[in-house]
Amino acid sequence: MTIDVVLLPRELRPEHLAQKTVVVFDVLRATTTMTAALAAGVKEIRIFGSLDTALAAGRSFQGPHLLCGERNAVKPPGFDLGNSPDVFNRELHRNTTLLMTTTNGTVAILASKGAEAIFVGALVNAHAVAEVLGKGGRDLTLLCAGTEGYVSSEDVLGAGAVIDGLESRIPIQLKSDTAWMARSLFRAERMRLKDALSESRGGHNIRRAGLTPDIAFCANLNSIDVVGVVQGEPPVVRLFDGES
Amino acid sequence: MTIDVVLLPRELRPEHLAQKTVVVFDVLRATTTMTAALAAGVKEIRIFGSLDTALAAGRSFQGPHLLCGERNAVKPPGFDLGNSPDVFNRELHRNTTLLMTTTNGTVAILASKGAEAIFVGALVNAHAVAEVLGKGGRDLTLLCAGTEGYVSSEDVLGAGAVIDGLESRIPIQLKSDTAWMARSLFRAERMRLKDALSESRGGHNIRRAGLTPDIAFCANLNSIDVVGVVQGEPPVVRLFDGES
Repeated sequence: MTIDVVLLPRELRPEHLAQKTVVVFDVLRATTTMTAALAAGVKEIRIFGSLDTALAAGRSFQGPHLLCGERNAVKPPGFDLGNSPDVFNRELHRNTTLLMTTTNGTVAILASKGAEAIFVGALVNAHAVAEVLGKGGRDLTLLCAGTEGYVSSEDVLGAGAVIDGLESRIPIQLKSDTAWMARSLFRAERMRLKDALSESRGGHNIRRAGLTPDIAFCANLNSIDVVGVVQGEPPVVRLFDGES
Repeated sequence: MTIDVVLLPRELRPEHLAQKTVVVFDVLRATTTMTAALAAGVKEIRIFGSLDTALAAGRSFQGPHLLCGERNAVKPPGFDLGNSPDVFNRELHRNTTLLMTTTNGTVAILASKGAEAIFVGALVNAHAVAEVLGKGGRDLTLLCAGTEGYVSSEDVLGAGAVIDGLESRIPIQLKSDTAWMARSLFRAERMRLKDALSESRGGHNIRRAGLTPDIAFCANLNSIDVVGVVQGEPPVVRLFDGES
């Protein structure tokens, strides 16, 4: 199995998608939040590219649903939830549908269209993702969402955590220096992930928005054992049940 | 002093150049070779964007000179030298002018036009570069040349080595996650730089070309104490003597 790491959505080339499984990392915070929501029993997460399309979907949606997401790290006007991963629990959110739009994670998921399968990955479920990917056997592209068009260290750390987890399970071949860098960075920083995330551009944005506890949640390696898979158009994220 | 790291020449934005000092890293091998040549007394290194312009300059040049460089890692037809850093010595090359063209380093140097000052950096002279930059005081952009348009781990390690050297001398502020990643990677890999360089895309190319000894030379941290500065148009690299 070959593994490549793409540092930003705009760096994706056709060969990163064709016949590949893509895993999208927006560790601070969209893919962590999706993973936490699915673990709490959320039924599905519908992804929207703009506030307007999300709000319109909310008005017409039948059944229990919540609008969630962020602009400039904070909850947009008219939304039920921001982009914090620690708000979900089974009693409140089981079988709820989330209608979600975020700044970076959404762009990365939309850019992955054309891949054979698309998963959402994070530090919180790195081992679970490695377990799923190791059984799949298809060559991999780990796509870092970045922050406002800049490379995000936390997404590279997430990709590195999945590489590290895969390497302990199956033979792998790193296809690029970026994959090599992701693995090395994760191994260097794995004992201080909370500090590493605090020091990043995304971490600064979150602390400035007064959401510091989100960082510790997102840095909590392998604390969740579910994986979200992206399907359909417009994309919907659901709990992966073994078929992709 | 702020420090940013740009992973590829195509990622340069105007703010990376305006009122900045740029250091170009093509650790395997152009900027290592330039540094080694200057340390051996080479008078200047004239940089050309194509084989044809370098060959034409060679035909009309007055005075002792050598054509050097590479395409696909090997010496082009009609050239005197390839791009290996270990061929220079004071007896043979003192006061010689090099007419040089390489695949990645040349592109990065030409892309740096517009900066206040441009230096060439490598692992072999990381401390010497940090010493020069620390005295300068201007904000920094460390530009990684990459390999064939892909991010090169060895260039990121070179940038990280200079950040590490600067941090031990003066207060610095990392401007991006890429700068943070470069520092962390260098600190993780500093005791195994030769292996790290062997594992990179550039290292594979060099080994395939039968030039394995070049890798050990390029990985030899702080083995050379001179720094090259780029001046003029077309660009010429000379020994930095304290004025930029």
